[in-house]
Amino acid sequence: MNLHENMSVNEQGHLMISGCDTVLLAKRYGTPLYVLDEALVRRNCREAVNAMKKYFSSGRVMYASKALNTKAVLRIAEEEGLGIDTVSAGELYTALAAGVDPQKIELHGNSKSEEEIRMAVENSIYCIIADGFEELKRIERFCKKLNKTIRVSLRIRPNIDVHAHQAVQTARMDCKFGFGISDGQAIRAAQIVAKSEYMILHGIHCHIGSQIFDEKPFVLLCEHLVDFACSVREQTGVTLAEFNCGGGYGVRYTDADTPKSIDVFLRLMADTLHTLCRDREFPMPSVSIEPGRFIVGEAGTTLYTVNSLKEITGVRTYCMIDGGMFENIRTALYDAQYDAVCASRMREEANYPVSLAGRCCESGDMITWNSPMPHVKPGDVLAVFTTGAYNYSMASNYNRNPVPAMVLVENGHDELIVKRQSYEQIAQNDVLPARLGKEKTV
Amino acid sequence: MNLHENMSVNEQGHLMISGCDTVLLAKRYGTPLYVLDEALVRRNCREAVNAMKKYFSSGRVMYASKALNTKAVLRIAEEEGLGIDTVSAGELYTALAAGVDPQKIELHGNSKSEEEIRMAVENSIYCIIADGFEELKRIERFCKKLNKTIRVSLRIRPNIDVHAHQAVQTARMDCKFGFGISDGQAIRAAQIVAKSEYMILHGIHCHIGSQIFDEKPFVLLCEHLVDFACSVREQTGVTLAEFNCGGGYGVRYTDADTPKSIDVFLRLMADTLHTLCRDREFPMPSVSIEPGRFIVGEAGTTLYTVNSLKEITGVRTYCMIDGGMFENIRTALYDAQYDAVCASRMREEANYPVSLAGRCCESGDMITWNSPMPHVKPGDVLAVFTTGAYNYSMASNYNRNPVPAMVLVENGHDELIVKRQSYEQIAQNDVLPARLGKEKTV
Repeated sequence: MNLHENMSVNEQGHLMISGCDTVLLAKRYGTPLYVLDEALVRRNCREAVNAMKKYFSSGRVMYASKALNTKAVLRIAEEEGLGIDTVSAGELYTALAAGVDPQKIELHGNSKSEEEIRMAVENSIYCIIADGFEELKRIERFCKKLNKTIRVSLRIRPNIDVHAHQAVQTARMDCKFGFGISDGQAIRAAQIVAKSEYMILHGIHCHIGSQIFDEKPFVLLCEHLVDFACSVREQTGVTLAEFNCGGGYGVRYTDADTPKSIDVFLRLMADTLHTLCRDREFPMPSVSIEPGRFIVGEAGTTLYTVNSLKEITGVRTYCMIDGGMFENIRTALYDAQYDAVCASRMREEANYPVSLAGRCCESGDMITWNSPMPHVKPGDVLAVFTTGAYNYSMASNYNRNPVPAMVLVENGHDELIVKRQSYEQIAQNDVLPARLGKEKTV
Repeated sequence: MNLHENMSVNEQGHLMISGCDTVLLAKRYGTPLYVLDEALVRRNCREAVNAMKKYFSSGRVMYASKALNTKAVLRIAEEEGLGIDTVSAGELYTALAAGVDPQKIELHGNSKSEEEIRMAVENSIYCIIADGFEELKRIERFCKKLNKTIRVSLRIRPNIDVHAHQAVQTARMDCKFGFGISDGQAIRAAQIVAKSEYMILHGIHCHIGSQIFDEKPFVLLCEHLVDFACSVREQTGVTLAEFNCGGGYGVRYTDADTPKSIDVFLRLMADTLHTLCRDREFPMPSVSIEPGRFIVGEAGTTLYTVNSLKEITGVRTYCMIDGGMFENIRTALYDAQYDAVCASRMREEANYPVSLAGRCCESGDMITWNSPMPHVKPGDVLAVFTTGAYNYSMASNYNRNPVPAMVLVENGHDELIVKRQSYEQIAQNDVLPARLGKEKTV
């Protein structure tokens, strides 16, 4: 297996990430531990920003923070020139609390609450990506009440099928997201926004799916965007200022994945949009993209300690780790594949396949199947790669396991950016009515 | 659709649970809201305890608290005479903090940490259900250090296939749980415990799966337990005191499910064990069972508010709710089926099928598909049934959504037992290094 960028092996045979010994990190912070490579996050941010600058005279890279939303990560993205895409009041709260400029924040979501729309309008964020008629009414109402205007982009739903897991196909006709084009809902929404005194019809948005390795579906996406923008111009007189092309750029989970540079995607999108806009005499819009996994996925590594091994003769060896589906549910949920190594024995031959079993009381709680390893022993530190996206962000307290800590590493330095949850915190919202008993100090 | 026990409809056409108007509950506590019917929890506890008393002269009902572990629920179970089955330090912490008698607690888990074993021994819990050789070493070590003894039961792994989702089949040979019988690991474990000065070889445990409607697989389970107990007697001289038969008793998620009374399962197990023990001249052991879902599953209902509707002509209508996979991941994870009703319009004809779409930014975030409903509107309150087990316990902050509140209802009274998580709490462990910026008050 090939190591990821910024990884190496030191003299003791320990996995190093950006100059930090993972075995020492495990010792210092405990495990499971999310490790995030700051230089790699920044590198990915710059790759996206540079490609944007190279191919588009005007554009924005919005970090899809649902992939990993913590104050430190949001500020790093902002420092690198990205805006922050949020999908809930909680993500918006975190961005604002981290000091992100509200004019760099946009708000997504298929089921926005009154509260979220109020928060967005009150804080004067850059743009709301509207996803339904009810929402448009609410935006109008809050803007009127607060006497404010706000940019609105419309999430549209063409009918594009991307070869991906069904759960991540987000531009099919039968999908909860967006205004349908073919049933006329999208144009009706555009008319409503165009007529509004408070909503500024700013752009359109489409996201076609996740973990995409083939740039060609983005041609279709661009065709749908230009087509629809021309209809909007025709029907409402408004020339849309921005096309938001969503995210979905694939990353390397295992050696079998061969992701492309974001440059490849943006070049093709730019070529397509320039041609189509010229042909349709549509002024080239500003373009925005929303990479999430691309920014943080490969920059994240999870460290575990081996609790025990269970060899089942003729079947397989289960390696019991101190993590599991409470901190990485993607294997159970999507049959996700991960590469794993023994971080404390990197120089030994990996001729002993083990399956990484999580500690939740559920057979489905597995992290990997048959990962090649050296002869691991209890106490060994394991590393699972590409856990930066949708691991911490989906973490639960299943089996009342605490959410792990996260440490930022860079060039030999380590810095805690998420503290490990305590047992007291897990139970902090429990209320024990007096009639049922009295709390004890444990 | 048939309502569950203790449910009715009031004059305003609102769903009532144990005499509480769900529309008023939604207003008072906000939504999403977990509602737990205390009388039903107690009824289920009593059904299990009574069946145990009826068929076994000695036995314990242990509440599998991973289904729903909060201080109030644990105390209710204890009041009803159940012990508490925990699977982690966090669950053990909660039980102890709720004032549960340590001698009524057992500890499970396929990957117990040093810390968990230390906590169990230090607090003198009733029994550790051991799951591997490494663990036996650790129990021995901590007992020696603290000069204590502790009961140990061995989780065994025969080779029983239950017709259930693969993720919930927990007694196959290829499974992370237990000591294998056929490969000799179980008997070796028994020999180790039998020889120990600190571990008391107390019993054996086997859990065959979840959501089981057919009692017959439990005959096989009993045969494996007696067989193995006879081997243990033969090889170590120890006559095991307790057989723990696990849980797995099915509940009604939808009208299509036809669960049986726990009496049916226990009667068959008692018949089988009495016959087998007599034939093998083995003294009838104490029996314990571990119902979790059975105790709290049907007693739980989740209330939602409709944020918006999206009719896709010729396809389906998505009903956007204010919950989703962050508070009920079972649909996404197991393709679980749920019945749903419009709690605020129970008297209207349900001739308008809608699919309940969660608010997470992911196509797979659905709670139900095509639920028959009246013409629901934004602001309506919906109720999804049988959410007492593995909903709150698996809740995450995905998309930084707060974990909902839980309210206990009984005979017209309501009482908060889990406070709603705040945005501040979601971000409470975030650390923003000074070099990256300064926090703002939102």
